[in-house]
Amino acid sequence: MVIIMHVGAPEADVQAVVRLVEETGFQPFINPGIERKVIAVLGDVDINKYELIDVFSNMPGVERVDLISDPFKLSSRQYHPEDLVVRVGTAEIGGSSLTIAAGPCSVESRPQILEAAEAVRAAGATLLRGGAFKPRSSPHSFQGLGEEGLALLREAGDRVGLPVVTEVLDTHDVDVVCRYADMLQIGARNMQNFALLRRVGESGHPVLLKRGPGSKIKDLLMAAEYIMVEGNDQVVLCERGITTFEDAARYTTDINAIPILKQMSHLPVMVDPSHSTGDWRYVTAIARAGIAAGADGLIIEVHPDPQHARSDGKQSLKPARFATLVGEVTRIGQAMGRSLAEAPSRA
Amino acid sequence: MVIIMHVGAPEADVQAVVRLVEETGFQPFINPGIERKVIAVLGDVDINKYELIDVFSNMPGVERVDLISDPFKLSSRQYHPEDLVVRVGTAEIGGSSLTIAAGPCSVESRPQILEAAEAVRAAGATLLRGGAFKPRSSPHSFQGLGEEGLALLREAGDRVGLPVVTEVLDTHDVDVVCRYADMLQIGARNMQNFALLRRVGESGHPVLLKRGPGSKIKDLLMAAEYIMVEGNDQVVLCERGITTFEDAARYTTDINAIPILKQMSHLPVMVDPSHSTGDWRYVTAIARAGIAAGADGLIIEVHPDPQHARSDGKQSLKPARFATLVGEVTRIGQAMGRSLAEAPSRA
Amino acid sequence: MVIIMHVGAPEADVQAVVRLVEETGFQPFINPGIERKVIAVLGDVDINKYELIDVFSNMPGVERVDLISDPFKLSSRQYHPEDLVVRVGTAEIGGSSLTIAAGPCSVESRPQILEAAEAVRAAGATLLRGGAFKPRSSPHSFQGLGEEGLALLREAGDRVGLPVVTEVLDTHDVDVVCRYADMLQIGARNMQNFALLRRVGESGHPVLLKRGPGSKIKDLLMAAEYIMVEGNDQVVLCERGITTFEDAARYTTDINAIPILKQMSHLPVMVDPSHSTGDWRYVTAIARAGIAAGADGLIIEVHPDPQHARSDGKQSLKPARFATLVGEVTRIGQAMGRSLAEAPSRA
Amino acid sequence: MVIIMHVGAPEADVQAVVRLVEETGFQPFINPGIERKVIAVLGDVDINKYELIDVFSNMPGVERVDLISDPFKLSSRQYHPEDLVVRVGTAEIGGSSLTIAAGPCSVESRPQILEAAEAVRAAGATLLRGGAFKPRSSPHSFQGLGEEGLALLREAGDRVGLPVVTEVLDTHDVDVVCRYADMLQIGARNMQNFALLRRVGESGHPVLLKRGPGSKIKDLLMAAEYIMVEGNDQVVLCERGITTFEDAARYTTDINAIPILKQMSHLPVMVDPSHSTGDWRYVTAIARAGIAAGADGLIIEVHPDPQHARSDGKQSLKPARFATLVGEVTRIGQAMGRSLAEAPSRA
Repeated sequence: MVIIMHVGAPEADVQAVVRLVEETGFQPFINPGIERKVIAVLGDVDINKYELIDVFSNMPGVERVDLISDPFKLSSRQYHPEDLVVRVGTAEIGGSSLTIAAGPCSVESRPQILEAAEAVRAAGATLLRGGAFKPRSSPHSFQGLGEEGLALLREAGDRVGLPVVTEVLDTHDVDVVCRYADMLQIGARNMQNFALLRRVGESGHPVLLKRGPGSKIKDLLMAAEYIMVEGNDQVVLCERGITTFEDAARYTTDINAIPILKQMSHLPVMVDPSHSTGDWRYVTAIARAGIAAGADGLIIEVHPDPQHARSDGKQSLKPARFATLVGEVTRIGQAMGRSLAEAPSRA
Repeated sequence: MVIIMHVGAPEADVQAVVRLVEETGFQPFINPGIERKVIAVLGDVDINKYELIDVFSNMPGVERVDLISDPFKLSSRQYHPEDLVVRVGTAEIGGSSLTIAAGPCSVESRPQILEAAEAVRAAGATLLRGGAFKPRSSPHSFQGLGEEGLALLREAGDRVGLPVVTEVLDTHDVDVVCRYADMLQIGARNMQNFALLRRVGESGHPVLLKRGPGSKIKDLLMAAEYIMVEGNDQVVLCERGITTFEDAARYTTDINAIPILKQMSHLPVMVDPSHSTGDWRYVTAIARAGIAAGADGLIIEVHPDPQHARSDGKQSLKPARFATLVGEVTRIGQAMGRSLAEAPSRA
Repeated sequence: MVIIMHVGAPEADVQAVVRLVEETGFQPFINPGIERKVIAVLGDVDINKYELIDVFSNMPGVERVDLISDPFKLSSRQYHPEDLVVRVGTAEIGGSSLTIAAGPCSVESRPQILEAAEAVRAAGATLLRGGAFKPRSSPHSFQGLGEEGLALLREAGDRVGLPVVTEVLDTHDVDVVCRYADMLQIGARNMQNFALLRRVGESGHPVLLKRGPGSKIKDLLMAAEYIMVEGNDQVVLCERGITTFEDAARYTTDINAIPILKQMSHLPVMVDPSHSTGDWRYVTAIARAGIAAGADGLIIEVHPDPQHARSDGKQSLKPARFATLVGEVTRIGQAMGRSLAEAPSRA
Repeated sequence: MVIIMHVGAPEADVQAVVRLVEETGFQPFINPGIERKVIAVLGDVDINKYELIDVFSNMPGVERVDLISDPFKLSSRQYHPEDLVVRVGTAEIGGSSLTIAAGPCSVESRPQILEAAEAVRAAGATLLRGGAFKPRSSPHSFQGLGEEGLALLREAGDRVGLPVVTEVLDTHDVDVVCRYADMLQIGARNMQNFALLRRVGESGHPVLLKRGPGSKIKDLLMAAEYIMVEGNDQVVLCERGITTFEDAARYTTDINAIPILKQMSHLPVMVDPSHSTGDWRYVTAIARAGIAAGADGLIIEVHPDPQHARSDGKQSLKPARFATLVGEVTRIGQAMGRSLAEAPSRA
């Protein structure tokens, strides 16, 4: 249930609604909108909600009460009509600019991550990505450098003046990843690892939440809800491909998900064409398509030497090809009335 | 097997290869490329092809012999390296321009199709679409006006100076549809109706071949092969959504298919965002994405009065919204170095 | 809309309802049930059906009027509560016995089909299958022997005393196939070839309707509806695997479809584990599972020499293995209270 | 790489192979097979494995060396040819008997779980299931009773003399769940929560590993590998439905997975028809099908009062219907030469 107040309803009216929500046993979440206040009513209280609608509808300052049939609330645009802009260090995701996060799949060595960082910044990325804890399908594959990788990623980000985003795999690691990273990534395989979602919610760090390849759009929004219910509303959604019968690419990029997510939710949406195609030959075309469909940014795998990458070499771009991608995407963005975000000048 | 001749190989060398192909019991198809001749070798002859490779490789004028592991040949880019441009009356599909086909799902009445034709031409379409034989999931739904619908579509196309494309459902109807239409559409449900594919192949009319929602990319190319093996190479492929577990839209637009098809085949590729989303609210975003991914054109359902359409009203655009779509797609096309095709001036 | 009459309602009451249905412009279909009459009301008449419900409900002899929300009617169990038994020559499909159709994918030669026919009859099959018109993904693959294949199949069936079932691909071929075959098969790729469905409906021959691999259960029932609306209610449904992301087998057998179809429809249901797995190693296990889930029969590919089959060799069983399958399936059937159908004694 | 020793090869030969494996930098895992020793060679060492094959093949006692192309090894039948029987308290899973785990989705109260436990034992279950930590798609839904639920489940299991299985959601909770439960369940959403897989591997407790609904069969085996590489080989696999386009049931039961898993792996396989259909009306048919396909057991949701269940009521069976299911499944099992496991007599 969402209670929508009139534009300019006095604070006393808002507080009266909030008190009544609390008295019935629900938890109120006030959306600090500029135009109007919206109060989300959460909880699993054993009360007939249809009766409550009448009660709330009759209170002063209330414009209307909507029963949200979808089970997500905090991540719903109904609750937060304006687009959200998420801030990650010096970078912003959402709004009128386009943001590109780029870097290698895994942090492999100091020279590798430093070279990658220089290359992606030079080409136009404003966020540096790189994996330290790697979720590999096989336990016999390279699992990442762990905390050493985090430190190298941090050093590379500081060197080139870009904030960094990296994946966290387990509740045990959230604290150490927060010490090094500006943004936490929840990988596709953990999209419904609810304990981890709650824990990154508590951390207060901005979160890049990747869609599970077998998960529906509404389940992605429900996963965002798990983070937001802990009080952390700095969530960016990421489409990275779904499993289908088509095997000409590794996954099927669900391009429909971009306009659908933008309509259902106020959260920024990024596209990861590296994973959603699994093949560097298709990454640039799908990057362009994602921006044309309305995405707020991209996350791209770039490696100085893809053929010797310890993971995901097949889908990584070389720096020169990444620079071409940024150029093409910038032109698509301009056709959409959006411009590429700029990195701060280097100290 | 594909035999690639040297650039400038004399005609006598080409003919010698062709003769040997025929003598072994295979059928040769010569690709009339400008740069170099390529000879496709087709048939199911009981001969060890690997031995033949050696024989052909040693002939004068032959650069190399490739065993095409994929089972499609005529539709393969290997056989026809240059992009194909398909001509449909005054319109062209493929090449540097973008082509938009638009019109109602079904031809319902004379005023409806005339109004739609005027509207889509005014907004920038260069092909008029409209269904006379409708493949409906239920036998109890409206099945189209049949030949009366074909005549109305023809009249409307002539009135506004646009060539027309319409679906043919059965081998029995190919002749009558050819009398009225400039281009034959094979609908998604008939993508593997092989008798129909052969028959439209024999007709020589240009064909718009829509992908079946449960069919892989390679099966789409194999379906094109059925048409082309009859000597008709004027085939345009169309992505119109695949069936997946995601139910927030009617189908999942397989945007990856655009760059994959462009890489595997020389045939032009269109996108049908009306069917691939099933919801007018997402059509424009996916139209932009399709062009950004590299498609050569779009096919869009436009109805003067979608709420009273006899079929597919939910996914049809009103003329004003279609005009907005054309404007946005034109800007995306310009960012890609492509311009919208123009209709001939009206008599 | 379905009008359910009281048990024992007099014929005059039934006729009065039928007349009123016709007067409103709809088409009445009377289900000749033993227990009670049920009248299906079909058509796309522009009348408020909700008002009609009241009218019909008040007529003498009417127990109740159901609005069938699902768009299939004739294939619905609501319209025909008792299980249907379809008769194909000497064989029956449905009811308390289990029916096995078996034979090679393609009729390849006289000795091959005669040997296969003897083998499958000896093992317990009561229907002989074999393809004369083959729908192959590639136009370059073996396309079947055509009418010569039909004649060989007929000869083999007559020799061993089994009725025969074979696929028809095109409306043009329905008459010739009807001359040779006892049952017409609509293949998965033609499940929504509506012209063909109508034509086999008109033929009056029993039909084995295979589910398209990208088609939902309700679309399968709608396809049956196309056949039945022409007055042919002798339709058997066949689950033969759907396309999913899992690639360890060729398709995914939708075993859930068996109890779902049995609940939604009165039509008999068969399972084709040869196609739904695409691998002879899994055929027997899935045959057992299909019967355990409640299917009325199986269709199995059996070839005297699978390694030299011209199509589908990988999924064909040798006669000895097929005999084992029949034995295991018979025991599963007994555990379900069903027994294997028996072929008539040979002349 | 897997090194297969001759039957009866002397221990000294085995040890010589093990030493050489270690010297090359790999990790040897010896399978203590009764018939013959098999040594799995694991690790990501930068050595040409093809050269090693020759070396090992020439050693005394070695029959042959197989390169396992699939990336799972410990879970592979190649490494462990005999079927594995997993022991869970007094119960066994695998071998010639069939095991049924049953109980409510969530432990809701002391009377509820005691009543359910009595009912499922009386009907023939030999394992009691019940959730204390519930992974719910929405954070606003009931999340389970936590440790209180574990204690109630333990009490109920002890009361009726059945071992208990329950889900663990987070690495933090593994210790507490191990104190109460005989078997740990990894839910579908956590199938690729690799930190959790490793942690339950370390625990040494038997594990019921459910397949993720968007995960391929080989990824399920890779997930098992994560548990087994920690030295815990007591893993039972569970098919519980995959996501497909078909929406007539909640998931599609991948029945093909049963014979495929049994062929690829020696681990026992169970089927969960409650989740794979999501509808109590289809649970019994799919339970029968699972056993007929060769599964070693079932996990079934049973609730004394499904209509008032706090989760999954729609798919839960009432005790009487569960007793019918057990009877039918027992008969199917007998047709397969298997008998239902028996619970120990109550103290």
